[in-house]
Amino acid sequence: MAAVQSLRDYVREISEIQSAASLAAWDQRTHMPPQGAEARAKIAGRLERLAFERLVSDRMGELLRAAEAEAESEVDRALVREWKRDYTRHRAIPPDFYQKLVETTSRAETAWEKAKAASDFPVFRPHLEEVVSLVREMAELIGYTTSPYDALVEEFEPGMTVARLRPILGDLRTDLVAFLKQLGRGKAPRGLPSGAFPLDTQRQFCREALGWIGYDFEGGRLDDSVHPFTIGVGPGDVRVTNRYAEDDPFSGLFGALHEGGHALYGQGADPALAWTGLAGGSSFGIHESQSRFWENQIGRSLPFWRHAHPHLARHFPHLSRTAPEDIWRHVNRVQPSLIRVEADEVTYNLHICLRFELEVDLLEGRLSVAELPDRWNQAMGEYLGVTPPDDRRGVLQDVHWSGGMFGYFPSYTLGNLYAAQITETAEKEISGFWERVERGELATIREWLREAVHRHGRMYRPEELCTRVTGSGLSAEPFLRYVRAKYGEVYGL
Amino acid sequence: MAAVQSLRDYVREISEIQSAASLAAWDQRTHMPPQGAEARAKIAGRLERLAFERLVSDRMGELLRAAEAEAESEVDRALVREWKRDYTRHRAIPPDFYQKLVETTSRAETAWEKAKAASDFPVFRPHLEEVVSLVREMAELIGYTTSPYDALVEEFEPGMTVARLRPILGDLRTDLVAFLKQLGRGKAPRGLPSGAFPLDTQRQFCREALGWIGYDFEGGRLDDSVHPFTIGVGPGDVRVTNRYAEDDPFSGLFGALHEGGHALYGQGADPALAWTGLAGGSSFGIHESQSRFWENQIGRSLPFWRHAHPHLARHFPHLSRTAPEDIWRHVNRVQPSLIRVEADEVTYNLHICLRFELEVDLLEGRLSVAELPDRWNQAMGEYLGVTPPDDRRGVLQDVHWSGGMFGYFPSYTLGNLYAAQITETAEKEISGFWERVERGELATIREWLREAVHRHGRMYRPEELCTRVTGSGLSAEPFLRYVRAKYGEVYGL
Repeated sequence: MAAVQSLRDYVREISEIQSAASLAAWDQRTHMPPQGAEARAKIAGRLERLAFERLVSDRMGELLRAAEAEAESEVDRALVREWKRDYTRHRAIPPDFYQKLVETTSRAETAWEKAKAASDFPVFRPHLEEVVSLVREMAELIGYTTSPYDALVEEFEPGMTVARLRPILGDLRTDLVAFLKQLGRGKAPRGLPSGAFPLDTQRQFCREALGWIGYDFEGGRLDDSVHPFTIGVGPGDVRVTNRYAEDDPFSGLFGALHEGGHALYGQGADPALAWTGLAGGSSFGIHESQSRFWENQIGRSLPFWRHAHPHLARHFPHLSRTAPEDIWRHVNRVQPSLIRVEADEVTYNLHICLRFELEVDLLEGRLSVAELPDRWNQAMGEYLGVTPPDDRRGVLQDVHWSGGMFGYFPSYTLGNLYAAQITETAEKEISGFWERVERGELATIREWLREAVHRHGRMYRPEELCTRVTGSGLSAEPFLRYVRAKYGEVYGL
Repeated sequence: MAAVQSLRDYVREISEIQSAASLAAWDQRTHMPPQGAEARAKIAGRLERLAFERLVSDRMGELLRAAEAEAESEVDRALVREWKRDYTRHRAIPPDFYQKLVETTSRAETAWEKAKAASDFPVFRPHLEEVVSLVREMAELIGYTTSPYDALVEEFEPGMTVARLRPILGDLRTDLVAFLKQLGRGKAPRGLPSGAFPLDTQRQFCREALGWIGYDFEGGRLDDSVHPFTIGVGPGDVRVTNRYAEDDPFSGLFGALHEGGHALYGQGADPALAWTGLAGGSSFGIHESQSRFWENQIGRSLPFWRHAHPHLARHFPHLSRTAPEDIWRHVNRVQPSLIRVEADEVTYNLHICLRFELEVDLLEGRLSVAELPDRWNQAMGEYLGVTPPDDRRGVLQDVHWSGGMFGYFPSYTLGNLYAAQITETAEKEISGFWERVERGELATIREWLREAVHRHGRMYRPEELCTRVTGSGLSAEPFLRYVRAKYGEVYGL
């Protein structure tokens, strides 16, 4: 086992450097004083470089070859598989190409910011053309069998392909568009009494809610940030951040449950996986399933609000004359809208289906960047029945493409689908599932998730993990059953 | 200049890694969740190792030799001088010896904690014997001309020697012991009205005070910690921490001024020194002078309290019936006591003189560890007129020796001496010095310090810097004039 141990020692060094980088990233978004920004970029760049040099080194290649011949245990084989994957993908990109990509996307992101502010797509267009061209070249360098998109989506969802995504997202889209029309004939929930929700009270409420789901503050913390995020600084240190809206306590609460779901995944990893690179999640999609589980499957359920309502009313007395059902209906309103990040649970996936279709067509060469805004607006009309009045609220709304992040968007919907699929299994395997939620006894559910998902970290690839947990591979059916049942009831269909 | 540039690139890499380590250290003492401790030790150790490997590498030796032949500008010569010093000192210690020292001091510190808690010197004795023996061996490895102590004090105060320290600290001790006797015949200040000082109000008051002295919150922050400290995370990011006592607002305030003084040094470094390793302070003693300047020379002066009193009274209304003079007298009480960290400005240096004499005798072999407690107690009686009832409040009170930190203690007193010496010069060079303090106009004074001291970072060695600023080398006379004048007035002599 000498070769495996040498590989372990080497990836431990990389992991420790990455851990320092994670801390620097957390601090940058939560506590760093403004004038520290320039130095922080240098520190982050240095740590990234130290880790990257090791990842793509000849020594890593030798260690992987030697360890591959030796690895026997499940963990050791996963260790070799995952590091070989990262090594191979990153070695495929020559340093000069990588630098060009970083510079191009950096300029493109600046151009995107300007273009978005002025709602002026032509400002962004040449940059996006350059990025798409480079990303296609990158896909060629990495290699693929069927679609260049496969080489990219693999980064976020190992094993996923266009061939597999297209029918799943296509059917999902058709069914959701139809269901949305049905909802239009239902009865929309009423609003709640308005009022102010002091930020400190919201923070306290969110800390309590994180406690309900079992987030361990001895191994983490909750801070404010502009965009909520979860970050594993290291074993025993998984931190969440959140933001709060003065006029709406639910945005903060669901943000906390969402990040808390990500954090439970990190806190639940088997300690034996520490410093192996296997303590992270199986994929972005599986990670998102854990956040969506607590945010939506649990947090937007009626039993949850039967538990949470008295606590809400205690913190915000002017809501004490509402009923749990009122809150439940309020947080389950469906309203087609222009902006993805503000979308509800039903329409959210349509925003993703649209982006997936457009980015596959861009990558496979069936769509030019010039045609992009029209195709965007047309699809918005078809899927959601709304048409962006300008590109700022249309094709320019997301940062992802300017940064070269093609293949990332499906993760969001995969998370929603996996979450529904896992919930169906949990309902069967945990006796009195919803009664437990109603009593606020969430420990059994969290422990079940820990055993089923969290403790394995990155040991299993997403499709394998999904099958181990739910008995079958990815499917959109559980999610469709879930939205039809819940929203049918909310809208009195 | 190719060789100098290569050296600059190399030390930039070391400095960036050290910067990441500083952030990790800051977070560990302010925000890290308890369960993150084990991982943090790994991260800190990894970063230290990455920096250390580079510092003592053959490549560093080659770069220094090449750059030394080329360096012309004052900065480049300082760059070579300082890195050569660190390189030479650290190369002199074989890795095996260093590891033995780390292990021994780690065990000794644990033993010291136990021994202190039980006031049981014999528990600590064999460990301290081992540490002293190793530290003497280290001094031999590093090399010295006259005393092994010189090899150690050099780490903290470059250029300082026993031969130079002994007469200065000896005279200081004699004069302070005599002055203390005089004070005993004076009139001690009365106490202040007691009351509670809410911690959040104290934090706010300290933020204001840091603002008065010109600490820039855009390039730093103030957090709580168990022991106050200042840390340069990187250029543009110099952070301070503080602690507060519920029954005493002055402990927190002077802590803030003290750390703020250190931080101004860091914030005031010439930006051209960033990432060169020259942006730190000239020495521990000079650094301490900057904290003592604001804490004592300014913060414990009557003009300062004429400015600060209305603010104090605004935050803590039950003090509003006091006069500025009452506060001034209160914060300038002198009371010989057993514990160094609780000592006042006059007796503090006697605690240091005692430690200096004992550690020199230990290092030069004139004193055995077994004799240490008796010598300690005897000297406390002679210098301060108090005798420790047990070793916990005597020889076991400080952590330094258990960690092998011999040669560090003089820095504290050097800081006090330099501070008084610099203040005498500033009084002459800045017109209406004390009137400015009384009006709270501290900007001119801070700018003068920045020009005289801060901007040079580590460019000049302490004795050279002292001479540049004050016109002469280190002297105890200004400090003695200062305490005689102020405490003579406070005690009505």
